[in-house]
Amino acid sequence: MKYLHTMVRVTDIDASLRFYRDALGLAELSRKDYPQGRYTLVFLAAPGDESAQVELTFNWEPESYGGGRNFGHLAYEVEDIYATCRRLAEHGVTINRPPRDGRMAFVRSPDGISIELLQRGAAQAPAEPWRSMPNSGSW
Amino acid sequence: MKYLHTMVRVTDIDASLRFYRDALGLAELSRKDYPQGRYTLVFLAAPGDESAQVELTFNWEPESYGGGRNFGHLAYEVEDIYATCRRLAEHGVTINRPPRDGRMAFVRSPDGISIELLQRGAAQAPAEPWRSMPNSGSW
Repeated sequence: MKYLHTMVRVTDIDASLRFYRDALGLAELSRKDYPQGRYTLVFLAAPGDESAQVELTFNWEPESYGGGRNFGHLAYEVEDIYATCRRLAEHGVTINRPPRDGRMAFVRSPDGISIELLQRGAAQAPAEPWRSMPNSGSW
Repeated sequence: MKYLHTMVRVTDIDASLRFYRDALGLAELSRKDYPQGRYTLVFLAAPGDESAQVELTFNWEPESYGGGRNFGHLAYEVEDIYATCRRLAEHGVTINRPPRDGRMAFVRSPDGISIELLQRGAAQAPAEPWRSMPNSGSW
């Protein structure tokens, strides 16, 4: 038995790729249109960890996707949580829970999927601008 | 960068372990109570694939958890999709999308988290009772 992926629905592929690929740092593995079913699937994964994927489903008929409380978040370990949060912020992503402790942060995808980021290994020393950055919204 | 886990919230740990562990077949890796935060965390993973986990969060204050459309499902590959579906059914789980094609099935956790099951390798030959079993509900 093997974990394959977590699927999330997205309303805008370009905005989602800016978030998951360009800002968060996942690698785009494949993208395929299914004209008969009128949807597009994009698979991404952390570089070097391609067996655990995230599947973006884009349905061509517009839908609005609310969130629910039964799903919590996706969690990724990162090499440098400050560098990851800086890159996310540069792409316009709100750092909902800044890494004040040098260890943990939360952000949300354009469709409200909560993402937990954890520093690999020991926490980094607290550092500005994160150390004094307040929480923003919920995650 | 590395995928760590998908977190889901659960309203009943015992019912959730019957589903994720006993019926679905994940292994329970750890369980810890956090009395100060008044929550319990349980981590599970597919046997032999322990680096990709699912985290169950049980908040001690009762909450009711609705689902949202932005989250789709968790997907697992299994050795024998018929054996997995049989074990799920024996534990009282509705097979929402039976494996009529010998390849794919969907079920839901007690809190409505959709789980996709995919037969490893080639599809199995269609077989009863699955071949003629209708869909049930949504997934």
